[in-house]
Amino acid sequence: MNQYAPSLTEAHRRFLTDLFPGEGCLLSAEGRAAFSADSSRCRAMPWAVVRPERREQVVELLRWAEAEHMPLYPRARGTCQVGNAVPALGGVVVSLLRLDRILDVDPDDFVAVVEPGVVTADLQAVCAKKKLFYPPDPASVKMSTVIGNASTCAGGLRAVKYGVTRDWVLGLEAVLPGGRVLRAGGRMHKDVVGLDLTRLFIGACGKLGLITEMTVKLIPLPEASASVLAGFADLSSCMEGARAVFRAGLLPAACEFMDANVLEAVRRIDDVPLPEATRAALLFKVDGTAEGVRAETERLCAALRPLSPVGVTVGTGAEEEAVWTVRRRISPATFQIKPNKVAEDIAVPRSRVGEAVERAHLIGEEHGLPVLCYGHLGDGNLHVSIMHDVSVPGEAEAAERAKNAVFRLAIELGGTISGEHGTGLTKAAFVPEQLGAASIALMDAIKANFDPSGIMNPGKAW
Amino acid sequence: MNQYAPSLTEAHRRFLTDLFPGEGCLLSAEGRAAFSADSSRCRAMPWAVVRPERREQVVELLRWAEAEHMPLYPRARGTCQVGNAVPALGGVVVSLLRLDRILDVDPDDFVAVVEPGVVTADLQAVCAKKKLFYPPDPASVKMSTVIGNASTCAGGLRAVKYGVTRDWVLGLEAVLPGGRVLRAGGRMHKDVVGLDLTRLFIGACGKLGLITEMTVKLIPLPEASASVLAGFADLSSCMEGARAVFRAGLLPAACEFMDANVLEAVRRIDDVPLPEATRAALLFKVDGTAEGVRAETERLCAALRPLSPVGVTVGTGAEEEAVWTVRRRISPATFQIKPNKVAEDIAVPRSRVGEAVERAHLIGEEHGLPVLCYGHLGDGNLHVSIMHDVSVPGEAEAAERAKNAVFRLAIELGGTISGEHGTGLTKAAFVPEQLGAASIALMDAIKANFDPSGIMNPGKAW
Repeated sequence: MNQYAPSLTEAHRRFLTDLFPGEGCLLSAEGRAAFSADSSRCRAMPWAVVRPERREQVVELLRWAEAEHMPLYPRARGTCQVGNAVPALGGVVVSLLRLDRILDVDPDDFVAVVEPGVVTADLQAVCAKKKLFYPPDPASVKMSTVIGNASTCAGGLRAVKYGVTRDWVLGLEAVLPGGRVLRAGGRMHKDVVGLDLTRLFIGACGKLGLITEMTVKLIPLPEASASVLAGFADLSSCMEGARAVFRAGLLPAACEFMDANVLEAVRRIDDVPLPEATRAALLFKVDGTAEGVRAETERLCAALRPLSPVGVTVGTGAEEEAVWTVRRRISPATFQIKPNKVAEDIAVPRSRVGEAVERAHLIGEEHGLPVLCYGHLGDGNLHVSIMHDVSVPGEAEAAERAKNAVFRLAIELGGTISGEHGTGLTKAAFVPEQLGAASIALMDAIKANFDPSGIMNPGKAW
Repeated sequence: MNQYAPSLTEAHRRFLTDLFPGEGCLLSAEGRAAFSADSSRCRAMPWAVVRPERREQVVELLRWAEAEHMPLYPRARGTCQVGNAVPALGGVVVSLLRLDRILDVDPDDFVAVVEPGVVTADLQAVCAKKKLFYPPDPASVKMSTVIGNASTCAGGLRAVKYGVTRDWVLGLEAVLPGGRVLRAGGRMHKDVVGLDLTRLFIGACGKLGLITEMTVKLIPLPEASASVLAGFADLSSCMEGARAVFRAGLLPAACEFMDANVLEAVRRIDDVPLPEATRAALLFKVDGTAEGVRAETERLCAALRPLSPVGVTVGTGAEEEAVWTVRRRISPATFQIKPNKVAEDIAVPRSRVGEAVERAHLIGEEHGLPVLCYGHLGDGNLHVSIMHDVSVPGEAEAAERAKNAVFRLAIELGGTISGEHGTGLTKAAFVPEQLGAASIALMDAIKANFDPSGIMNPGKAW
């Protein structure tokens, strides 16, 4: 196995403070503590935190880290749900937030060139001013960064029409252990020369190297959109409703699902514009030209009608955002049910979502815990929230067992234990079950070509 | 370097004829000759050709080939333009055309599962009957196969809106040297567990292993489309016309370009519905709902108007296909100019296409040869045809020099020497210039993880 540096020596500290002067290197316990956890609430103290402002510093850092066998943990906003940003085995956290320039947004090449620490929503706002569109939109889009999104291959609401982060990265520059600089892809929208190293980095969770620049593809900003919220009397009509929309030939930009437990939770903190009898709901967005959007909205509503929805709200223009309030309130609302949450993000073949929801509810019943299901039905990507109260004896353990049952369910249904969050620390135990030892060995071997000493983000699952 | 088997022994022949009885193994010179070349017209005789009908035969073959250090060359319809299907170093050609079943086309999961030898247009036809859509459409779509398209990451006309083959493959099964079976991805539309081995295979030109099954993503079939052919008095208004369409917020399904030389060539064999004064033309397709298509067509024409097109033809309904005749006649028409062609497929940043066309024409003038430019302007992907006559002394050499100048031009403009054809044998010399030695070493190392003896499709560039 890899022999990592056992701790930070005085010489290491000197090297880091020389390379990252002033606030660029944090060695104090208070300074380091802020970089010890991510949204997974897993925690481990880094030995140091560095904050590069120039690529040259990254090159020097990776040259040194390779020579010293020093683990490095790339980190941006720390919104990772599974612990990928946590310095699990000790070492140095590399915060990329000072590499945050939008270098170019080109309305003719239809590309943007960005440094890793740019917040995705900020990039989208700059693009929108030029009537350009960078579609990937994980729920964290206002907080998370392009590098965080690339590291997990973030998906989000619009993936059903526009695909995931992987589909939008045309090229990148990365610094590899030893200080080698790799450039892959570029501003051209098509390129088939060489193995696809660009996309190998997407979803690699910072384990191959440190991305210092990304070139992403843009498209013209759709001029109009509309949204439709529809409630159903039962889960099966709801699933049939989604099917009917796709069968009508429509490809909505978003196709979201919420179960009865989710709706009940949201009702505790906000109005839900659906009748009490609603047991499951769909939320669609369509986008395009104004005329196209009008037509698609009408057809979408017509496709739902045979399923006798108990309530339909159409939001257009200034009223569109209001239709999404219920969806946006889910996360805070869940804590109205129980104070603690295990939140998973399985994905299954699209036709199995209804079954996955029913069986996730049964898993909740078996473990005596409320389970809330919602998510990106259009991609078969389901967020399963297992609510519990760690102050009640046995509930934390029951939630853990329920989580494992949900993972087993995803694999049994021909799906994946993660559609967008990754595996990191919290799902590590289940990765071999999904991928198998041979695939993992192949991934480890590929990683070793980039990172022979295993210093990049060690201690995490694939 | 790798030590390959120097020839086929009697024991090898026995093994192959046992594993592939009857017509499954071709050893005669006539039988083998049919598998010696591809559309590049490069040629090398294989020692044997095998035609597996079951995955188990592929597994046995790769176990044997690894033990014997026997080069294997996967091949489907042989439409490759760059020699990737040619058995350059001797060995066994593996024809995948008998593995040609469409195993599943699922209107709820929105996936198709196919064996490698399925012709892409056949898959699209079966999908269309179920109102489903598999968008990738290289010009060869009626002849080429899903595996051929995957091996080169084929693009085509619709890439500007729908992306390339890579964006549509969700999972695959591949057999690796030694007979290991790798399964990556699956029927789920989102999956972030593990390194992205699925997409590493796309564009890898059969050098990592032999794909035996693919799961591809489908979307609802757009119900309507329309096409617009527009001629311009000069190249710069033509390029401005394309820019104006994108700036109007439209994302056409296709945005094709043809230069004056192309139009002149087509006129020699067919009517071109554009005035003689046309010096460059654009051909657009829009698709979606009927209402959306109507609106987009109107806007597209309105966006072109300020550039004073010398002719505009709109094709809708039954008349739409006729608008494409000019585009489809390009390939045969080029030979009206000169009997031989060097056909390249560079891609450049979208804003540099006009410059690339002008400079390609200059390269033609410098070398005394007509150069025809057309292609997928929306992706910056330009087909440059250098016409010559090999029976005229010096023209073949001039064409070769002009080709090299075109490659240098692509790299100088920040582009790639291949947007969709690959590099294979014919572009091998230029790959190091584009990728650099360090990237190539990394690709070689990754290949060795899959194929330690280097038996998969050797002798080709990345």
